[in-house]
Amino acid sequence: MSATLHGVDPRTGRPGPEIAESTVDDLEAAITAATQAAHDPRLADASRRAEMLRGAAARLRARKQEIIALAGAESGLPEVRLNGEMERTAVQLEMLADVIVAGEHLEVIIDPADAAASPAPRPDVRRMLVAIGPVAVFGASNFPLAFSTAGGDTASALAAGCPVVVKGHPAHPRTGSLVASELSAAVADAGLPAGTFGHVLEAGFGLAERLVTDDRIEAVAFTGSLRGGRAIMGHAAARPRPIPVYAEMGSINPVVITEAALGARAAEIADGLTTSVTTFGGQVCTKPGIVLFPAGAAGDGFCELVGERLGAVTTQVLLTKAIADGFAAGLAEVDAVPGVTRLSEAAAPAPDGDEIFAAAAPAAYRTDAAALSADVLREEHFGPSVILVAYSDRDEVVDALGSLGGQLGISIHSEDADAEWVQAVLPQCVAQAGRIIFNGFSTGVSVSWAMMHGGPYPASSNAATTSVGMTAIGRFMRPVAFQNAPAALLPPALADDNPLGVPRRVDGARE
Amino acid sequence: MSATLHGVDPRTGRPGPEIAESTVDDLEAAITAATQAAHDPRLADASRRAEMLRGAAARLRARKQEIIALAGAESGLPEVRLNGEMERTAVQLEMLADVIVAGEHLEVIIDPADAAASPAPRPDVRRMLVAIGPVAVFGASNFPLAFSTAGGDTASALAAGCPVVVKGHPAHPRTGSLVASELSAAVADAGLPAGTFGHVLEAGFGLAERLVTDDRIEAVAFTGSLRGGRAIMGHAAARPRPIPVYAEMGSINPVVITEAALGARAAEIADGLTTSVTTFGGQVCTKPGIVLFPAGAAGDGFCELVGERLGAVTTQVLLTKAIADGFAAGLAEVDAVPGVTRLSEAAAPAPDGDEIFAAAAPAAYRTDAAALSADVLREEHFGPSVILVAYSDRDEVVDALGSLGGQLGISIHSEDADAEWVQAVLPQCVAQAGRIIFNGFSTGVSVSWAMMHGGPYPASSNAATTSVGMTAIGRFMRPVAFQNAPAALLPPALADDNPLGVPRRVDGARE
Repeated sequence: MSATLHGVDPRTGRPGPEIAESTVDDLEAAITAATQAAHDPRLADASRRAEMLRGAAARLRARKQEIIALAGAESGLPEVRLNGEMERTAVQLEMLADVIVAGEHLEVIIDPADAAASPAPRPDVRRMLVAIGPVAVFGASNFPLAFSTAGGDTASALAAGCPVVVKGHPAHPRTGSLVASELSAAVADAGLPAGTFGHVLEAGFGLAERLVTDDRIEAVAFTGSLRGGRAIMGHAAARPRPIPVYAEMGSINPVVITEAALGARAAEIADGLTTSVTTFGGQVCTKPGIVLFPAGAAGDGFCELVGERLGAVTTQVLLTKAIADGFAAGLAEVDAVPGVTRLSEAAAPAPDGDEIFAAAAPAAYRTDAAALSADVLREEHFGPSVILVAYSDRDEVVDALGSLGGQLGISIHSEDADAEWVQAVLPQCVAQAGRIIFNGFSTGVSVSWAMMHGGPYPASSNAATTSVGMTAIGRFMRPVAFQNAPAALLPPALADDNPLGVPRRVDGARE
Repeated sequence: MSATLHGVDPRTGRPGPEIAESTVDDLEAAITAATQAAHDPRLADASRRAEMLRGAAARLRARKQEIIALAGAESGLPEVRLNGEMERTAVQLEMLADVIVAGEHLEVIIDPADAAASPAPRPDVRRMLVAIGPVAVFGASNFPLAFSTAGGDTASALAAGCPVVVKGHPAHPRTGSLVASELSAAVADAGLPAGTFGHVLEAGFGLAERLVTDDRIEAVAFTGSLRGGRAIMGHAAARPRPIPVYAEMGSINPVVITEAALGARAAEIADGLTTSVTTFGGQVCTKPGIVLFPAGAAGDGFCELVGERLGAVTTQVLLTKAIADGFAAGLAEVDAVPGVTRLSEAAAPAPDGDEIFAAAAPAAYRTDAAALSADVLREEHFGPSVILVAYSDRDEVVDALGSLGGQLGISIHSEDADAEWVQAVLPQCVAQAGRIIFNGFSTGVSVSWAMMHGGPYPASSNAATTSVGMTAIGRFMRPVAFQNAPAALLPPALADDNPLGVPRRVDGARE
């Protein structure tokens, strides 16, 4: 009898139907098929891959109601959020399809031969990016669609031309399986080899470790906890042939508020902060966890506002009981730190009055910069909580930020008159974050070319890459240079007449 | 009394003057100064850095005779080579200066706000690459100038805006110290903080390990052996805060020759191969170590030609006695592999008849593809040797290449009529090499935009990057996105009016 796993509705605690866990043989078959697909010329055809990506988007949209119902039951996330997440997932697949048809992801550079070059005559060198091969993707618990089975990591690896083996998140196995079946169907529709996409499920970590350490896997993409990400990094680095790991491991996403900003719009900032901290249970990697505010009367008033607003938010459904328990345990540690006071009392009950299985009351705390020496205040608390930290001067802001380490995002609320003050703090923000948000919050990551969703460790394992936006494709490609190649042997993207019409840098000029 | 180290003239065995080893305090001072420099706004000024890079080139050229004399005495490399290497080093510094003044390394992308964007309104997001911070560079033994103290790694890290601490190679301590003093003087000339460049020397590995594991170091660049590179990778991955390692660890650089190519120009290929294998003692990471040739009469004739030509090359001076001993030990193992025969007899003596301290006779071997199961044939032999491997058909070529793993380069000699044959082998070459050379050899790596000098592990630690060419700068940068930033707070490269005139992608169009 094979092992099974099941999701649990975090709203009610009701277990979902049993689903078979994947076996070691299933994983082996998926990796073998992916390896074959990596060598299949059909997968190297960008227009065929674009067709598959667009087809997947259409298929997911067509089954939207079923997918959202399953995802709601397995994650507790509200329909409005899952609707948006589904659309984001589909649009992302379509945008990446557009990119690879245009060929921008190939980053073609052509240096014609130059007999007069110094220090030595230069041969003809033409370079483009190529797919790296089979990629392992770990789905995230908190975005059952956009950062999971057909999410950003899968979509960008497939766009790059890499076969993908997804290790689905066990908290939403039915959602993942349905999405996986539609993605596999889109692969078949486009005439791509079946091994282009594979999907395995397990409750534990045995298959995960096999997947990361299998010699045929060329990279790993992961969205989740620091603990999980670091474990994967360790396994990948210890392989006989180490491979890159692209792990997005969340962060604290500090917010800095200037005195002038507080004077001009304290209520507006408190409203925005409350929304950013509590939306979807605060269970996003970009949730602001620490807010640096100026000590003094205006700061005191701001703390009161945040305490009131957060206290008025109803009890939240978290994704799983384990996450709710972990959140509660973390807050208990925060409660015990000397000099930290709770600003919000017990939250309003859930609207329908029923008891929630995996519940969390939003919580706001207040302390000052000196208290940040307590480790637990500088850790990510995955849930609807925030710690307001009073600062006395700019140096304290810089030091406090520095003590928090690598971040996905840092937000700054300031007024025009503060420009000089902010300019002095900005280098510290640039040094430790992948994105700096002005007069807004880090939650809500738009899918665009310029987006950077990543940051210095521990925010991500590779600060030079993003897991959101068009440049996410680059994680799964590497350059290959063709030197003095006969015309007949050049890939079309590198041919003199540019038959694919891809953007190129030729002898220093953009085509 | 502090410890000392000295170079040894590999031609004579004569030790050079004693030089003080750096102390732990010296290293600490260098890292502290580098950390301060990383936060200094002067280092963020690309035009000031360009002035420094150009100044360094001018200073090195001005002391060329002294530097080359020292490098010759410490490496045994001939003057003609060191002249070329010096010019390459200087030109590289100047080319990188041009790149950063133009601003292409910033990879600016600007996505204006779009209220109508799907799935959600898009904020204004502007992204550029920024310097990652202090970089540790390990100089290589085999390029005392171009891949050492002021070589490609140092030059590209400095170009990126990162302070550099070089751990000089102990085989050429006086060369390294003189180059370092000129580089430091160029730093001072340009008004950059002294910590922009630091240099330490040691005979062992204690400071090296401290450098790699120091929390203030943000990346490591290394050119050397697989063993050394892998050790550094391990230290970097095990840090509390892991950092990227860009290690170029050499490779076998296989050559494939088609039957038609052999028919058309066996002598020409044998000449080119002999030059490529023996120039500068075969001590380059791009030396072709294995040549796949078609079994049969033409192949037999080719082996004879190569044996004759290699046998006629004079005994070579290697870089160090340790390298000469290692090379001899490796060949002794090759000699012992069943089915491997030596094609060349003892080399001609050195021209002046004197005994060479660190000597190697060029060696060519012949075997067939089945013999490649012996590990020692698939390892890099650092010195003037080559193994010719007979293949019976195309599948055997693909399998043989596959068994050799990641490569810096693979060379293919073919005729126009072979296009179909080569097309069938090319995917394997693309899958495992960073550069594919047609009708030429992998030695001689031009410094240009399209150049790719790197490859899948074990050729390098990060197959997505190059250590030669203009894109080498990218190893030391990471993206930062500015979201909804007020105009007054945007870095100049991201400002609406593009005051720096840098190339940018704005709303999908190239500026």
